[in-house]
Amino acid sequence: MRPSGRDLNQMREVTIETGILTHADGSCLICVGDTRVICSASLGERVPMFRRNTGLGWITCEYAMLPGSTHSRNRRERTVGHPSGRSQEIQRLVGRSLRSCVEFASMGERQIIIDCDVINADGSTRCAAVTGGWVALRIAMDRLMEGRKIASDPLVNQVAAVSCGAYAGQTLLDLDYAEDSEAETDANFVMNDDGNWIEVQCTAEGMPFTSARLTEFLSLAEFGITQLFALQRSAVGRLLPVA
Amino acid sequence: MRPSGRDLNQMREVTIETGILTHADGSCLICVGDTRVICSASLGERVPMFRRNTGLGWITCEYAMLPGSTHSRNRRERTVGHPSGRSQEIQRLVGRSLRSCVEFASMGERQIIIDCDVINADGSTRCAAVTGGWVALRIAMDRLMEGRKIASDPLVNQVAAVSCGAYAGQTLLDLDYAEDSEAETDANFVMNDDGNWIEVQCTAEGMPFTSARLTEFLSLAEFGITQLFALQRSAVGRLLPVA
Amino acid sequence: MRPSGRDLNQMREVTIETGILTHADGSCLICVGDTRVICSASLGERVPMFRRNTGLGWITCEYAMLPGSTHSRNRRERTVGHPSGRSQEIQRLVGRSLRSCVEFASMGERQIIIDCDVINADGSTRCAAVTGGWVALRIAMDRLMEGRKIASDPLVNQVAAVSCGAYAGQTLLDLDYAEDSEAETDANFVMNDDGNWIEVQCTAEGMPFTSARLTEFLSLAEFGITQLFALQRSAVGRLLPVA
Amino acid sequence: MRPSGRDLNQMREVTIETGILTHADGSCLICVGDTRVICSASLGERVPMFRRNTGLGWITCEYAMLPGSTHSRNRRERTVGHPSGRSQEIQRLVGRSLRSCVEFASMGERQIIIDCDVINADGSTRCAAVTGGWVALRIAMDRLMEGRKIASDPLVNQVAAVSCGAYAGQTLLDLDYAEDSEAETDANFVMNDDGNWIEVQCTAEGMPFTSARLTEFLSLAEFGITQLFALQRSAVGRLLPVA
Amino acid sequence: MRPSGRDLNQMREVTIETGILTHADGSCLICVGDTRVICSASLGERVPMFRRNTGLGWITCEYAMLPGSTHSRNRRERTVGHPSGRSQEIQRLVGRSLRSCVEFASMGERQIIIDCDVINADGSTRCAAVTGGWVALRIAMDRLMEGRKIASDPLVNQVAAVSCGAYAGQTLLDLDYAEDSEAETDANFVMNDDGNWIEVQCTAEGMPFTSARLTEFLSLAEFGITQLFALQRSAVGRLLPVA
Amino acid sequence: MRPSGRDLNQMREVTIETGILTHADGSCLICVGDTRVICSASLGERVPMFRRNTGLGWITCEYAMLPGSTHSRNRRERTVGHPSGRSQEIQRLVGRSLRSCVEFASMGERQIIIDCDVINADGSTRCAAVTGGWVALRIAMDRLMEGRKIASDPLVNQVAAVSCGAYAGQTLLDLDYAEDSEAETDANFVMNDDGNWIEVQCTAEGMPFTSARLTEFLSLAEFGITQLFALQRSAVGRLLPVA
Repeated sequence: MRPSGRDLNQMREVTIETGILTHADGSCLICVGDTRVICSASLGERVPMFRRNTGLGWITCEYAMLPGSTHSRNRRERTVGHPSGRSQEIQRLVGRSLRSCVEFASMGERQIIIDCDVINADGSTRCAAVTGGWVALRIAMDRLMEGRKIASDPLVNQVAAVSCGAYAGQTLLDLDYAEDSEAETDANFVMNDDGNWIEVQCTAEGMPFTSARLTEFLSLAEFGITQLFALQRSAVGRLLPVA
Repeated sequence: MRPSGRDLNQMREVTIETGILTHADGSCLICVGDTRVICSASLGERVPMFRRNTGLGWITCEYAMLPGSTHSRNRRERTVGHPSGRSQEIQRLVGRSLRSCVEFASMGERQIIIDCDVINADGSTRCAAVTGGWVALRIAMDRLMEGRKIASDPLVNQVAAVSCGAYAGQTLLDLDYAEDSEAETDANFVMNDDGNWIEVQCTAEGMPFTSARLTEFLSLAEFGITQLFALQRSAVGRLLPVA
Repeated sequence: MRPSGRDLNQMREVTIETGILTHADGSCLICVGDTRVICSASLGERVPMFRRNTGLGWITCEYAMLPGSTHSRNRRERTVGHPSGRSQEIQRLVGRSLRSCVEFASMGERQIIIDCDVINADGSTRCAAVTGGWVALRIAMDRLMEGRKIASDPLVNQVAAVSCGAYAGQTLLDLDYAEDSEAETDANFVMNDDGNWIEVQCTAEGMPFTSARLTEFLSLAEFGITQLFALQRSAVGRLLPVA
Repeated sequence: MRPSGRDLNQMREVTIETGILTHADGSCLICVGDTRVICSASLGERVPMFRRNTGLGWITCEYAMLPGSTHSRNRRERTVGHPSGRSQEIQRLVGRSLRSCVEFASMGERQIIIDCDVINADGSTRCAAVTGGWVALRIAMDRLMEGRKIASDPLVNQVAAVSCGAYAGQTLLDLDYAEDSEAETDANFVMNDDGNWIEVQCTAEGMPFTSARLTEFLSLAEFGITQLFALQRSAVGRLLPVA
Repeated sequence: MRPSGRDLNQMREVTIETGILTHADGSCLICVGDTRVICSASLGERVPMFRRNTGLGWITCEYAMLPGSTHSRNRRERTVGHPSGRSQEIQRLVGRSLRSCVEFASMGERQIIIDCDVINADGSTRCAAVTGGWVALRIAMDRLMEGRKIASDPLVNQVAAVSCGAYAGQTLLDLDYAEDSEAETDANFVMNDDGNWIEVQCTAEGMPFTSARLTEFLSLAEFGITQLFALQRSAVGRLLPVA
Repeated sequence: MRPSGRDLNQMREVTIETGILTHADGSCLICVGDTRVICSASLGERVPMFRRNTGLGWITCEYAMLPGSTHSRNRRERTVGHPSGRSQEIQRLVGRSLRSCVEFASMGERQIIIDCDVINADGSTRCAAVTGGWVALRIAMDRLMEGRKIASDPLVNQVAAVSCGAYAGQTLLDLDYAEDSEAETDANFVMNDDGNWIEVQCTAEGMPFTSARLTEFLSLAEFGITQLFALQRSAVGRLLPVA
């Protein structure tokens, strides 16, 4: 039915391996099928200018793709001198999503930078970055608490993301690159563990969509994100909540 | 009730003045309350590299704010050397929205650049840019047809945009800057004149939202955009459709 | 006689509308025929590095053209990463001209940035920027005095500018674009209200000129600038001096 | 004796895993202890300007470090707008080393770009990049020959690299980060499988060295590189030469 | 009287040494007192885009200062990424001045780049660049004619430049740095050998000036430039015109 | 035998003229045949960030070539926005070489910037920069001691550099451009006056080399550098050491 042979509501296999970097304060390799993203969290003692002397922390994100990660080699952004519009959109999305889970007063005037570097790209890299980014952040926060630098846990929510799309009149969950390019839609959903939405982004350059379709997307996205929450908790050694 | 004193579903006064530039192929000044944006369309004979020798046209958009348009003076992006992440997100959104209305084969291998320059900012500038950008594009397309450079009209749809937000438990249409900063949400909707969605972007850094809230947004956005369609048609001398 | 049909010493109609921006500390739209420039003054509390701890203020200027303001669309300077040589020359000229009117000790260690953005270009935009820039600066200084932030008026002179050129053996005042491109000269004059020159810039890439011609320019420029002084005073609610 | 506890002439464990990227024409992950570098080879049909219409191919290299790969987070070079001096030195070194193995006439007018991205850094990353870069290049060349795009093998030599250093009067092979920072020397050696040197770079900011020391370095480097040759051949499925 | 002890109308000693570079098509070192500028002319076969296929040539100029040439070390412009506003103004001035002497049709579709690099700065470097630039250009044109690449001499005029200034109520010729900083004026004059003006630039940030003063400047400038014409002709082996 | 007609171990004529700049704290023009480099030392009161509050000084180097110094005109690096890879490699080499001679604690928390600007290039410019850079630094240090700003001499060693190469089976000292391009090797040696090596850099893109060849290079380099030491001492008014 769908190009990948998966069921309409079937995600690809997802694995999350933590501790893959020796220097970062938190790190993981998240694999969503052939999409592979290294997420790392680095603690900096200085916050951005607009946060100075507020007592509040900050989370920022940077996203990039390795040159060899894409079908045709992807030119390094350092040559251009700034992140592409696409990279900026994605890292702003990931940053907002992670910040929505944080109580900044508990964090102290510190910044954590989340780096999401795509090693291999097969669609939905921004969703993998949100999901893996949370894991790296969770580990870094745990380390801060272990080191008794902060007293209460600033990371009060869990957040994860999936993509959806429409293809041949049907609604699909978690599009890989081949599906994404045929479907010509780009719908991404970020939800927290209270079951509320953090981001809903549906873009239809090729195919305008109805409100009914959007409702289907929401339902499918919730189904997928719930599975990701369990995988994240397992990766960071948290019990699953009692259903 | 709402800070501006408007009804929940009441838009600000919107005016569209065309022909304000002497050199551009199409232009207008759109005012949405105190938000004022100059939109101009410039015809270029060359398309971007990826369109060369395809016979297909292209629409691109650039968005910027004058330094004096914002509360505290806004540093020129030329100093930084590239558009900010925010500017890039907005011009990508406007570009996608306008391209969704165009049959590129009818347009010939031409590019039209839509420039949206914010003269004065009071919230929802990106929505004003989409709505005014369509007017500038409509005028430029009319001129191309008058000059018999193209045979059939490539601009087959109409498109417009509004913002929504939640404030004190209520759902508001068309937020001005004061409302936008209190509501801490950023929801933007682009619809075409077939009643289908082109873009749905709901961002909740401060306040996660439910699927029910999103449904309210959609309904309110449709109500506002329908009014904008009539204003656009009037500005470019088109009859209103029989209801 | 001259392409525009005007008399040799006749300026175009000039209007100055103040208060056109809601956030700037001073603003105006100056129209010299079809040349239209938005001038705004923004007060910053910090002066440039070389002025720190001197107790002296500073005035700086930035000049740019909207992409749709020119005959063929004008590429945004943010793409290049810095102002063009032409923009830099103009903003340096406007800055020097305005600074010549200011007693910096009375101003306190503050900076005012004058932004001159050309909305529509039809020749002599740099002269319009000087003339309109002074109006924006006058309003900002008035506001500073009203707010009792400064005790005595730092803006002790008035300054304005016009262009001249030679065409078919005759000397013209206030060239529009069509005249400017045929005359192939670029002569600009800045005078203060003591009747002294601040800047005299005559450039003759196409047509070297004699000292006699320069004398004619000076006389014509004085004639035009005197008219601009009256318009500026009227725009900012000052009485005309008794002749 | 040495900080890592290894023998003076003992290298860290080296592994080379090929085929780790799905899109690149050749790829491997090389691990030298905790130094981990992804090397990929991407075939481009266009050579640089100076090679056009010569019938000759070209090999170029780009080197970068992920932000999370280093002790304190490493700022992305895209922020600066160009590779750092260190990155440029390294990628020039790797490029020269690989080009020394290639007969460009057999390669045809093609370019292969070798990307070396450091995932985790623990000293001697440039040597790992040379050694792993050769493996990625070997695989890409094999693919070109399998696809019958080239007739005879352009990669006529094998090349690999190691570091040496002096520490407490002794000469060490393959320094890790802790050793490198104490020894305060930076000596790197590139040799081909004819036993000749391609690069000898000894830098002594902290500790000038004698000709005798340099002779010891050469002998130790040859000992290490010979081991790397065997690992490279094994990784790409080549028999070891009869000793 | 004047800080340097020179007479009011006395220039510093000027020397012009040609042929100082082995690769350039024309070169000289011009010394005006302690102001020393290397001027070189490099022939390029390609003209800028706007000249392509017109059959016309072009002259462009680049100006820069060595870091060690100024009182406090001058930061390299490569760090900033573009020439400063001051450098751009000067190179535009030098380019216009030299182009005013050239018949582009005789030159063929070639470009000559004039590089003016200040080795040591002691005021009036832009004037030295114009005067020395003409010498480098004259030599390069001679070489083109000797090589029979062009038939008739495109360099139909001679051009040179001096500075003037007002100091303690008197009018001075050729200001050195010490004089220039006290006089607080910046007046530069470019004249051709027909006795007509190419550029007149008088800037008075510190001290507005009268038309009478400007007339004195013109007379003094002509006196100085006439002397430079003789030195230029001598440097390139031309006879002096019969007076 | 060798293209230049010199003996295998014969250097070109070397001259060092000091005091050629009026503002720099130390300066010289070093000529090695037709290679001519201006070296200047500028004292800055601020050290780089990583040296702040350490009480230690720093030496940094910048290297560039004038556009007219090379066979075909060399594009200014300011156009590119950063030094080329080659320039960075060279200035890092010169900086390391000079720093190896300095006791930073005696110098106080000051920085000296060494600028090496190539006026005319004929091979081995980086070696000339090291040798001339030391002379400029020596003069600046002498001035610091004369001004009693520092008590004991921080410049405790002398350093100089030469190039070597292999050509037609023979080993040459001090290659000029013609020799360098035929030999296709690039070997540079930096030695201090204790007879120890600071840098050994042998690069063989065209022609791999043996350990025996490297030994010959070392011997020849020492022979050349010894002569440079005498020239340096003479230039700065030091006695030659008793042999």
